[in-house]
Amino acid sequence: MPGATGGYGMIVVMESRATREQINDIVKKIQDAGLSSHISAGVERTIIGVVGDSHTKELLRQSLEASPAVEKVVLILQPFKLVSRDFRPHDSIIDVQGVRIGDGSVVVMAGPCSVESREQIVQTAHAVRTAGAVMLRGGAFKPRTSPYSFQGLEEEGLRYLAEARAETGLPVVTEAMDVSQLMLVIKYADMVQIGARNMQNYTLLREVGRAKYPVLLKRGPSATIQELLLAAEYIMSEGNYSVVLCERGIRGFDNYTRYLLDLSAVPVLKQLTHLPVIVDPSQASGKSKFVPPLSKAGVAAGADGLIVEVHPEPEKALSDGPQQITPDTFAQLMGELTPLAAALGRRVQAPAALRSR
Amino acid sequence: MPGATGGYGMIVVMESRATREQINDIVKKIQDAGLSSHISAGVERTIIGVVGDSHTKELLRQSLEASPAVEKVVLILQPFKLVSRDFRPHDSIIDVQGVRIGDGSVVVMAGPCSVESREQIVQTAHAVRTAGAVMLRGGAFKPRTSPYSFQGLEEEGLRYLAEARAETGLPVVTEAMDVSQLMLVIKYADMVQIGARNMQNYTLLREVGRAKYPVLLKRGPSATIQELLLAAEYIMSEGNYSVVLCERGIRGFDNYTRYLLDLSAVPVLKQLTHLPVIVDPSQASGKSKFVPPLSKAGVAAGADGLIVEVHPEPEKALSDGPQQITPDTFAQLMGELTPLAAALGRRVQAPAALRSR
Amino acid sequence: MPGATGGYGMIVVMESRATREQINDIVKKIQDAGLSSHISAGVERTIIGVVGDSHTKELLRQSLEASPAVEKVVLILQPFKLVSRDFRPHDSIIDVQGVRIGDGSVVVMAGPCSVESREQIVQTAHAVRTAGAVMLRGGAFKPRTSPYSFQGLEEEGLRYLAEARAETGLPVVTEAMDVSQLMLVIKYADMVQIGARNMQNYTLLREVGRAKYPVLLKRGPSATIQELLLAAEYIMSEGNYSVVLCERGIRGFDNYTRYLLDLSAVPVLKQLTHLPVIVDPSQASGKSKFVPPLSKAGVAAGADGLIVEVHPEPEKALSDGPQQITPDTFAQLMGELTPLAAALGRRVQAPAALRSR
Amino acid sequence: MPGATGGYGMIVVMESRATREQINDIVKKIQDAGLSSHISAGVERTIIGVVGDSHTKELLRQSLEASPAVEKVVLILQPFKLVSRDFRPHDSIIDVQGVRIGDGSVVVMAGPCSVESREQIVQTAHAVRTAGAVMLRGGAFKPRTSPYSFQGLEEEGLRYLAEARAETGLPVVTEAMDVSQLMLVIKYADMVQIGARNMQNYTLLREVGRAKYPVLLKRGPSATIQELLLAAEYIMSEGNYSVVLCERGIRGFDNYTRYLLDLSAVPVLKQLTHLPVIVDPSQASGKSKFVPPLSKAGVAAGADGLIVEVHPEPEKALSDGPQQITPDTFAQLMGELTPLAAALGRRVQAPAALRSR
Repeated sequence: MPGATGGYGMIVVMESRATREQINDIVKKIQDAGLSSHISAGVERTIIGVVGDSHTKELLRQSLEASPAVEKVVLILQPFKLVSRDFRPHDSIIDVQGVRIGDGSVVVMAGPCSVESREQIVQTAHAVRTAGAVMLRGGAFKPRTSPYSFQGLEEEGLRYLAEARAETGLPVVTEAMDVSQLMLVIKYADMVQIGARNMQNYTLLREVGRAKYPVLLKRGPSATIQELLLAAEYIMSEGNYSVVLCERGIRGFDNYTRYLLDLSAVPVLKQLTHLPVIVDPSQASGKSKFVPPLSKAGVAAGADGLIVEVHPEPEKALSDGPQQITPDTFAQLMGELTPLAAALGRRVQAPAALRSR
Repeated sequence: MPGATGGYGMIVVMESRATREQINDIVKKIQDAGLSSHISAGVERTIIGVVGDSHTKELLRQSLEASPAVEKVVLILQPFKLVSRDFRPHDSIIDVQGVRIGDGSVVVMAGPCSVESREQIVQTAHAVRTAGAVMLRGGAFKPRTSPYSFQGLEEEGLRYLAEARAETGLPVVTEAMDVSQLMLVIKYADMVQIGARNMQNYTLLREVGRAKYPVLLKRGPSATIQELLLAAEYIMSEGNYSVVLCERGIRGFDNYTRYLLDLSAVPVLKQLTHLPVIVDPSQASGKSKFVPPLSKAGVAAGADGLIVEVHPEPEKALSDGPQQITPDTFAQLMGELTPLAAALGRRVQAPAALRSR
Repeated sequence: MPGATGGYGMIVVMESRATREQINDIVKKIQDAGLSSHISAGVERTIIGVVGDSHTKELLRQSLEASPAVEKVVLILQPFKLVSRDFRPHDSIIDVQGVRIGDGSVVVMAGPCSVESREQIVQTAHAVRTAGAVMLRGGAFKPRTSPYSFQGLEEEGLRYLAEARAETGLPVVTEAMDVSQLMLVIKYADMVQIGARNMQNYTLLREVGRAKYPVLLKRGPSATIQELLLAAEYIMSEGNYSVVLCERGIRGFDNYTRYLLDLSAVPVLKQLTHLPVIVDPSQASGKSKFVPPLSKAGVAAGADGLIVEVHPEPEKALSDGPQQITPDTFAQLMGELTPLAAALGRRVQAPAALRSR
Repeated sequence: MPGATGGYGMIVVMESRATREQINDIVKKIQDAGLSSHISAGVERTIIGVVGDSHTKELLRQSLEASPAVEKVVLILQPFKLVSRDFRPHDSIIDVQGVRIGDGSVVVMAGPCSVESREQIVQTAHAVRTAGAVMLRGGAFKPRTSPYSFQGLEEEGLRYLAEARAETGLPVVTEAMDVSQLMLVIKYADMVQIGARNMQNYTLLREVGRAKYPVLLKRGPSATIQELLLAAEYIMSEGNYSVVLCERGIRGFDNYTRYLLDLSAVPVLKQLTHLPVIVDPSQASGKSKFVPPLSKAGVAAGADGLIVEVHPEPEKALSDGPQQITPDTFAQLMGELTPLAAALGRRVQAPAALRSR
């Protein structure tokens, strides 16, 4: 695979019926050409990345294409490959308990910054579902800049999230910061969030990659587009293709907003990758009053969805109160998103009837 | 007026019928209190800013309010004052030959980066007018990073712009980089653009302020929101209140786009100032393919309008070809903006019938 | 402790002979005042942070100061406390196997970006020791932007580092990215590096805090000074006070260098914290030719030391070749640092005679 | 000349004795090849830049080289050319009334942010001269973010500067923001400063280029290295080769310092250009306590000099008090720079005996 140094990379897409032996044959051919291989065993089929450079690469490509176990060989010009549109031209649709992220509709996830009590999360879940959210967010493990700030309810918070899901049918997305938290999140929730601060925590990315579990990957505040895509590549290269990207603001120099929402990143990412892209206007702006206009701008820029912080009493929130909107403001925003989506030839994805799980 | 050091500032709004003598009386009172004054003689009325700090400020305020020639005294907590919503709570509407910027509608200005020939600008003017633009843009004096790049057709370019206006009725906005250019722009065009590189060219800002002529003030790539507003304050403090602000991308760290469009700036500015705010998606992104999604995002974020670069043959453009869209793409974009604006409870401002001038 | 919301915080420093019971008494007093406590059990004494706000805080302070088990109560105005100069006015000296970081001398750590072979690291260790380095660096676990890049020799690399130390007596610093790596690093090395990408990996920071093992904490590329100090606070709040900070370049907008070395951070940090601060000119610039001038600038800015990448054959390096200098260039740089340090009233710390371990 | 689009450029250096006719011949040859030319008539010799691209460029080069009036043809790979080291491999030395900037020594300019009174500037000039400064700085025209801040004493300030020079022999550098100010500065001072806000004020750059007068060009806070060099190219392309570059801090995201001093820019610039580079630690940091360490770091990074703000009573300064150091602190800093420069194999340039003018 090419690094920043150029050259092109190759991905060998095996036939879905390819046997273990046939895969081993291909790997051997690659090694014989002086290159190394990287195997991603996906659910449907196995993908083999060809890593390194050799003057026999072109010969190898022809030989691989001639193999009956190989469906196709894809040439990649970017340092990222599985996330690239070169690899998969069509939009990926990530299914989270029936919510289809990336199918052209606008998916709205909502909920409080932190889970603070059973009552708070259940009440908020009902409110956001009524307003039209299709997924519930809420932090049980909170990455806080200061060790003295509220760090989340941990497993207790996860239990409350699961209860809120049971009552409302909304699938749950919540953050994990390490492997032990990941195991708990998988037990209780439906999608794991990798937060901005952990975007380049490669150990965690690999673990999530092995977990075969839907992932919401947030862009780090100083991450380039390419770094974000390579972080997703870490997850995909372990065989987990259920990745949704999230723009949540980068480091800017002004302080009227907490971070600087980079909405250009939305069309740029949609061009470079087949993965869905959503926008977090709450973390980005840090101020509730800017959440509605930035939500609308995100959708108009082409985002596949939004993740919005909603709290029944923002002024009493244990974390990030100033950026959380009330259920009323959220309901109003949802009311504005519906005609906006229609004007863009899209629709806001509606919550399913109460799901049985 | 308070600097970054805090304290509050005062603006004395004189009655419209206040005489020169009455104004002088007020100025004297201010001086007697150990403060200095800054007079803005606007079209309708005179505004006196009180500059400095003194322990007698509160007494002075009461005394000024008691004067029959004073309409009101406005207290300002920000370092900028005439641009502030504290000073004028309602949105300002800037009229440019009948185009009303800031009236709630979406105003679209379009045209090539540079005027390159009579034919090019007239042809583009007709095309953008047909598609729904209400103002024509085009550079006659071009600020170019390199002294060896095409620097614009200068006065010849201004003449072509005036001819394009005569044929289409579209008012013209074009850049001036110094006082001598400003005199020419005023002769031929309808609105002068102060470019991002000159946002803190205070000599030019003062001259434009004295010119009493509509101004499009672009944000510099490293300018904070406050610096942009203080640049506008330079213009207004000379008595010219016809200022439109423009977000055109700030310096970012990624290079998939040329600059980083800061759409948060739109709602932030709309909160802080009564002046209209438009968005330039072409300069910001530097790539034509990102212009349509960022145009829509800008409108959804609440911008009062857009300024879009359109060139009949972008691949042959003498400057910034990669960021200019074709007339066809522009027409398609305008077709998409109409329902978008409607969904937002707004409308795209339509070109007037061919104006006679 | 105050968050960003203001107010002052309190740290209760217990007498070194304070008993468990006395500590519990203090904690109870704090709780009775409606506040909560955070205990750091250090080697010498226990520190209790008072977290939260209450109108009885001042009364509490007086009561705590009156307790015979309390040495003193320190008021802190910053959100960080144990790292603050308010807490400890004198410079901390971190001892790593006899190397004293922060004692006023210039400590130079050097070695390759990655450990690539036994021969490579041993050869480099001898070379840098001869030139005057007092510690050996080298990555065994490499955080790479792409999953397809060389990821380090892992435990094998750690063994080679230990062998290089055995031959040269140089204590070893090397990176760990998760808890399992941390256990291995502690087994083989003398100081653990928390890399820039993991600066806000709070799970890892807490584990390192519990490990009571010298830590080199690198600033993340978008981390503010305060965020860096709060990351160090995570480590210290678990009782590990052996923390050295490292400026290694932040995200800039120019691409002549890889990152933007922020040398202002050196005097700013030296003012705010008692912890030592070193500079990494190699990661920052990404280009070997800028390493010598930036090394000298770092020392002149007041850094307690440098960490420099040195490779016997940079053009063949498996990672970051362009930023590694040769042993010859390093020897020349050390020759220049000696008079420079002297001119600043300091000295370059010399390697000890071959240490027996 | 190549733009960002690549290709190589050519500069034709004429023999110093080349006649007007010979120059015209060369220009004609260039035009006949389908290219255009850009003439810089310097004091010593004429330089002709070849602008544009043509398949006959290589033939043209050979033909030009064969001309007896041509000293040499220089190929340039960068978009900037006259500022490039490709054009002039040796360091340029800029002479300002006997002060030689760029000759290897450390040149220190010092003085207040603003000229505030005759007494203030004369007193400061004596103090900084005594401490070892070789040039006097002081603003008569002040670019202020707010129109309500002190804007400088204007021509009166220039007269005071000239008086301070008469008393101390120190050549004077001061800022001009437009052409009319430039004419006054030339009348009273010895070097004109183009401030950061005007770095891309191309009208002003051209005027300064035509003025053939020493220029101190400050980098804008969001200017890339290349943009700074192209701004210098504007000046040089008009025939003025007496340009000194100044790094004064770029826009950063932290607020412990006012701007972010980019000391990497010093070695990067020294590699790319033959022009001298100095550092302004006062504007960069905005805080007096950081001025001494950053001054030393700047010299250690290889800067040709410093420009330092010194005020007899910083707490009473009319502008930027917090960043100005006292004469005592300045004297101490100069005392530290002397051994530092010696350790670097350099010297601090000493003030001449009182010059008669």
